[in-house]
Amino acid sequence: MGCPGLSVTASAISIAEVSRVDASCSAFILVHSSLAMSTIVLCGSEAQKQKYLPSLARLETVGCWALTEPDYGSDASSLKTSATKVPGGWQLDGQKRWIGNSTFADVLIILARNADTKQLNGFIVKKGAPGLKATKIQNKIGLRMVQNGDDISKVLWISRILVAWQPIGISMGVYDMCHRYLQERKQFGAPLAAFQLNQEKLVRMLGNVQAMLLVGWRLCKLYESGKMTPGHASLAKAWISSKSREVVSLGRELLGGNGILVDFLVAKAFCDLEPIFTYEGTYDINALVTGREITGIASFKPAALAKARL
Amino acid sequence: MGCPGLSVTASAISIAEVSRVDASCSAFILVHSSLAMSTIVLCGSEAQKQKYLPSLARLETVGCWALTEPDYGSDASSLKTSATKVPGGWQLDGQKRWIGNSTFADVLIILARNADTKQLNGFIVKKGAPGLKATKIQNKIGLRMVQNGDDISKVLWISRILVAWQPIGISMGVYDMCHRYLQERKQFGAPLAAFQLNQEKLVRMLGNVQAMLLVGWRLCKLYESGKMTPGHASLAKAWISSKSREVVSLGRELLGGNGILVDFLVAKAFCDLEPIFTYEGTYDINALVTGREITGIASFKPAALAKARL
Amino acid sequence: MGCPGLSVTASAISIAEVSRVDASCSAFILVHSSLAMSTIVLCGSEAQKQKYLPSLARLETVGCWALTEPDYGSDASSLKTSATKVPGGWQLDGQKRWIGNSTFADVLIILARNADTKQLNGFIVKKGAPGLKATKIQNKIGLRMVQNGDDISKVLWISRILVAWQPIGISMGVYDMCHRYLQERKQFGAPLAAFQLNQEKLVRMLGNVQAMLLVGWRLCKLYESGKMTPGHASLAKAWISSKSREVVSLGRELLGGNGILVDFLVAKAFCDLEPIFTYEGTYDINALVTGREITGIASFKPAALAKARL
Amino acid sequence: MGCPGLSVTASAISIAEVSRVDASCSAFILVHSSLAMSTIVLCGSEAQKQKYLPSLARLETVGCWALTEPDYGSDASSLKTSATKVPGGWQLDGQKRWIGNSTFADVLIILARNADTKQLNGFIVKKGAPGLKATKIQNKIGLRMVQNGDDISKVLWISRILVAWQPIGISMGVYDMCHRYLQERKQFGAPLAAFQLNQEKLVRMLGNVQAMLLVGWRLCKLYESGKMTPGHASLAKAWISSKSREVVSLGRELLGGNGILVDFLVAKAFCDLEPIFTYEGTYDINALVTGREITGIASFKPAALAKARL
Repeated sequence: MGCPGLSVTASAISIAEVSRVDASCSAFILVHSSLAMSTIVLCGSEAQKQKYLPSLARLETVGCWALTEPDYGSDASSLKTSATKVPGGWQLDGQKRWIGNSTFADVLIILARNADTKQLNGFIVKKGAPGLKATKIQNKIGLRMVQNGDDISKVLWISRILVAWQPIGISMGVYDMCHRYLQERKQFGAPLAAFQLNQEKLVRMLGNVQAMLLVGWRLCKLYESGKMTPGHASLAKAWISSKSREVVSLGRELLGGNGILVDFLVAKAFCDLEPIFTYEGTYDINALVTGREITGIASFKPAALAKARL
Repeated sequence: MGCPGLSVTASAISIAEVSRVDASCSAFILVHSSLAMSTIVLCGSEAQKQKYLPSLARLETVGCWALTEPDYGSDASSLKTSATKVPGGWQLDGQKRWIGNSTFADVLIILARNADTKQLNGFIVKKGAPGLKATKIQNKIGLRMVQNGDDISKVLWISRILVAWQPIGISMGVYDMCHRYLQERKQFGAPLAAFQLNQEKLVRMLGNVQAMLLVGWRLCKLYESGKMTPGHASLAKAWISSKSREVVSLGRELLGGNGILVDFLVAKAFCDLEPIFTYEGTYDINALVTGREITGIASFKPAALAKARL
Repeated sequence: MGCPGLSVTASAISIAEVSRVDASCSAFILVHSSLAMSTIVLCGSEAQKQKYLPSLARLETVGCWALTEPDYGSDASSLKTSATKVPGGWQLDGQKRWIGNSTFADVLIILARNADTKQLNGFIVKKGAPGLKATKIQNKIGLRMVQNGDDISKVLWISRILVAWQPIGISMGVYDMCHRYLQERKQFGAPLAAFQLNQEKLVRMLGNVQAMLLVGWRLCKLYESGKMTPGHASLAKAWISSKSREVVSLGRELLGGNGILVDFLVAKAFCDLEPIFTYEGTYDINALVTGREITGIASFKPAALAKARL
Repeated sequence: MGCPGLSVTASAISIAEVSRVDASCSAFILVHSSLAMSTIVLCGSEAQKQKYLPSLARLETVGCWALTEPDYGSDASSLKTSATKVPGGWQLDGQKRWIGNSTFADVLIILARNADTKQLNGFIVKKGAPGLKATKIQNKIGLRMVQNGDDISKVLWISRILVAWQPIGISMGVYDMCHRYLQERKQFGAPLAAFQLNQEKLVRMLGNVQAMLLVGWRLCKLYESGKMTPGHASLAKAWISSKSREVVSLGRELLGGNGILVDFLVAKAFCDLEPIFTYEGTYDINALVTGREITGIASFKPAALAKARL
């Protein structure tokens, strides 16, 4: 269908290289390609693939992928958007939030709970469908469900891997810029790179960049060998984005006053990283997913809740 | 002249309370009042006070204060803007950068090196003066120098104290918002405040906020009793802004996805803090100013420079 | 009775000054004076005061104070040692652990649950009492209870305040030693104090020391004015010991190889701090005590427990 | 000669596995095998190999390796111990410090400056040699120099790689113990592993352990493919030991009061790590070695020194 058929490792490196220059651009690609197109590839019927993939692959149409809702970020099991079978298709009711590409996408994959089976299914919705609003999905949308709903989790796994590579790319880009800046810019007559405090910061950045690259690479290899667990992906995403936060913060500092100007890119990276730290599971949620896997005990919910439910 | 005549402590608390809501607004006040008006009060002639202060005090006119230059942030002794006595006033040549209020100020205090004495003096320039450009000061500016140039350092000292109170206010504002948000917003059916990981973050924020408030307060008292040294001010500014960075970063995290929306204010605080971390001496420069005071050894310049000057 | 009658602030400063030189020594004083003697002063009968205080005040006898038990560190409400009224006195049954001065104390204050009232009371036990073992309290101990059990909580409050001052003193001592060492020791022909990386560490230590001193001082003032809450004490203890950990870690680094030799005191301080970080409530428990106070929600127990209790 | 002939990767994993249980033991092996034996293998004559290696390989004799001196830790170029050719051998004059195994070693490799060539050479000294004192090397030591002094740097490179693997092993051991402890020990009726704050710490430890393992593994592969630079080794050693410090500090915290008892091993690991953080180049020195490699500018010496040498 014109899909590149890249391995996960190759996709990951592509995402990182784009993020190195512009994280927003990598978010666009991630949503369009790794979420929307992948869902059709993995879960769609042959006819759906024929219909949607070629123009998506040529970027003649743009895809988006709608999971999160206003009141539920990390708690996917509580998603409220419902899908009811109606003559000629499905009717979706609900609201989505934080949906990348949503205001200009041609093809929207909307995740909703099947009113019959209570399972999460993906639905292909075309721009302009009746009842669809860019920031609010109301009701009465005729569309066709993608077939193998079980594979939705595969899409989410690949998505989490690729999201972990965005902070890697951002960090590499910030390191590149600081490395150059410290050698070009002078203070007290010497290049900034000659100051101990600056060198130590640059080295700390590099140490983190190399470690996160290796952690990301190992994650891809685990996935490709069929051994990756949810905990692996969560830990990698949490750990990498946490180290990346340290890297961009150091980079911001190294650029001094220029570190707050968007035209130096580091300020942009500093801000771009924050949503990544939070989406695809916040740091805390991913830590607790990992914690559950290594201890066998879930600690997501506080005691207060358990009591309240008595 | 209508000046409030607040003590440094009172001014500091005012700056913090305004920063608690909006740091940009406190920056405006700090430049207008604590820098521009203070310079006229401390260094101006009686006639200058009569002429400028009343309308500045009523905010009918706005002041600004121009010290930093494109190539010299932290290295004040290298400032290049020069002031030469000419018939009818002074001619200033040079460029300034990072000047708050500069594009709309009516009364500009410009710091320049007196071509005769080589000392740093402050000059009052009115909006529309010949040769003045909003982002570039070229030449041929007729104006009158403020008289007691020696007091410029007093203005800078007060400025550093007040700048240290901006992160205090920002941190208090971020704490306020997170404290409220954690109790109102629910996850897994319980208020966010019921989660251990969230409580610990909120408590860490509060511990830092209280400590920085006390450090700021102590700094004011040292100043008011005539005991404050440059190291005191530098250490307080560096330490407070560093802890504040931790506070806003925790706050950003606590708000999850909403932490990246400017309408929740925390994202704004997160970004507003960065220039404060850097201006009035970066963290590193203030650390080294303090280091010089407590060890008697200046370590600003790297060995490379010293060699190069041989 | 020969008690010094110091204010809490004065006691705190004394503890810090002793900790500055030797934290073990301050722990001895804290247990002997602030826990054992204070309990008798606040809760003892006139006869008990007459009998025990004078020789304790002259250090002819040594006191200790036994609260914690093998299986319950932070969870005071679960203490199991019981006190049953028997003819001629009380019989205590139970084990204690982590009791400072216990192996050589002459006068032991043992906290036990009154079998009748279920309240926590303090009991004065003399060395050599039947059934008393240095590390294990078995049974049949005749002794007299201190009278006003309600005041035990006052003793605990003062204890938490004073424990918070130990890391302050330790940090001051480590700073003193590093400050001297950096100026005396040379590397590459220059004093260590001339290196940027060393200066920044020393300054970071000083910033923390000053802030923790102010936080500790404020805590004493809140107590003395009757306004201190449990959250105030917990937050101060948690925050101060956490910053102190940063200080001794930096100090350890600054001394290089000598930082691991006990005769340079910094290694000793590095290790001495760890129990302090943990006793009188670990960092986490104190954080959650504070969290409960500021949010109104207790998050000590995990959901798993609540479920298990169904 | 009975040497195992392990690859660097295999040696590294061995060092880590021993460190996982006892870091002191791995230090013994590292000095005996990777420093003393390796020096003879890489730089010794065939006769020296025949004479010393077999009994060293069977641990019938113990080796040590003496580089650092009392006044010069990180500054190898300033080593003062000299070696002068005398009839029948060489005479070494100087003092060494921080020499592992020195008090009981049978075969000592002593690094000294050749008085003729001014190069650093290694000398084999047998226990009981005249003038040799366990902590002080005085003079008149007859011995035979190892031949290819140029290869000493190879020994140092391998040593730095293996030293970087000690914190990896220590961290794995601390993780193991905490992982077990959190599941066995209860608080408030639930296993410690059920508490969010504990899970997050354990997960942070695991993230660091996995990253440092990958960084160490990559370093070995770079060495084995002939591509490793001094900066690679320095960055890995500095970054790994810095993350390991975070791991053992978290582990110490997780074990609460038991974390300060040596019989729980975590307290031992906490202390064992500190010399490793400092030897084979402190964190700062290794950071600056890396900084020089990536910027082309050496910033080891402060400006003060350069001035002083004028």
